Amino acid sequence: MRGIFISVEGGDGAGKSTQLANIKQYMEERNISAVFTREPGGTEIAEKIRDIILDPANEGMEDLTEALLYAASRAEHVRKVIAPALEDGLVVVCDRFVDSSIAYQGYGRGLGKVVEMINEPAVNGYIPDLTIFLDLEPEVAMGRISNRGHDRLETEAADFHERVHQGYLDMIAKEEEEGIFRIARIPADRLAGDIKSDIYAELDQIFGEAE
Amino acid sequence: MRGIFISVEGGDGAGKSTQLANIKQYMEERNISAVFTREPGGTEIAEKIRDIILDPANEGMEDLTEALLYAASRAEHVRKVIAPALEDGLVVVCDRFVDSSIAYQGYGRGLGKVVEMINEPAVNGYIPDLTIFLDLEPEVAMGRISNRGHDRLETEAADFHERVHQGYLDMIAKEEEEGIFRIARIPADRLAGDIKSDIYAELDQIFGEAE
Repeated sequence: MRGIFISVEGGDGAGKSTQLANIKQYMEERNISAVFTREPGGTEIAEKIRDIILDPANEGMEDLTEALLYAASRAEHVRKVIAPALEDGLVVVCDRFVDSSIAYQGYGRGLGKVVEMINEPAVNGYIPDLTIFLDLEPEVAMGRISNRGHDRLETEAADFHERVHQGYLDMIAKEEEEGIFRIARIPADRLAGDIKSDIYAELDQIFGEAE
Repeated sequence: MRGIFISVEGGDGAGKSTQLANIKQYMEERNISAVFTREPGGTEIAEKIRDIILDPANEGMEDLTEALLYAASRAEHVRKVIAPALEDGLVVVCDRFVDSSIAYQGYGRGLGKVVEMINEPAVNGYIPDLTIFLDLEPEVAMGRISNRGHDRLETEAADFHERVHQGYLDMIAKEEEEGIFRIARIPADRLAGDIKSDIYAELDQIFGEAE
């Protein structure tokens, strides 16, 4: 039987690392064999592509180049790591996946539909069964800058994160219209323990409640 | 006025370097301001992507990853080098362009139409006005292996180059059906001087005959 594919999405400050550790604990407690991996990266070649994307020396990179590099890294990751593990019946937990590209490049950078188009062959049909979206309102994530005076760069960054956030909400709304409830939105402006409980409840829906 | 965009295509052994030097000489003789560039590469970031594509350590790379990396490199190259030069009215001569991706990844690797799909946003409408295709029959390029005994790898390589070659011929045929005569097929199994004469005749059609 094909394994379960779980992705975790959320911006800086949403507590993604903490909750990934909690998901790992969940799998260990239940003796579920799970592969933990991340994007961009996850294979040797994909990590080299990640280095180009994230190197500050490359900050002049075109938006479309960035989006194509993410897709190239993903094509490698899906075929070398995610698909083989799922076909072996393992659980795969991925720190970010294609939703990040749609939110950050499609909405944030304004590239739009082209991001979905170039990622469709990259993911090759491997869409998460469950996506945990740790949702932090952009103004909270940005350190509540909205009540203070702020400069142009802060405003630009705030606008960018606002668009990214809207991207995630749009994806959820669009899927729900089609009767798909893949993305679990977990409010992240709360105590880590409360967030963990909500995530465990989502996982229980897939793996059954503990005895 | 927008400048003229020329690409040069052709496999190993077709004499591409020699003919690029001849094209450079042509431009110099006529005092035509031309930018000479190459793919994959052509900008700092694109060269870094080129390094990943060509590094023998990465030979296990997925075919689609390779195609997306070529497209990423091209997106950068088009926007940073080719488009600005053409908009400045300069001639751009590019050693390989999108036809290489269609022939090598689409036909050679068998990825098909997806290569055109991911390259459409990358080239952003910048299609060469003239493509010089230095055409060497695959069996000539492969050192006439067809009359000798040959091992599995040689047969695979021969099949690959046969598909690539067919790709170029298909592109020419498809465009001609639409009344487009962008690609000039120049038989390359001849003396360099004869090939040069044919190329100069093609260039004269664009730039007018010398006084």
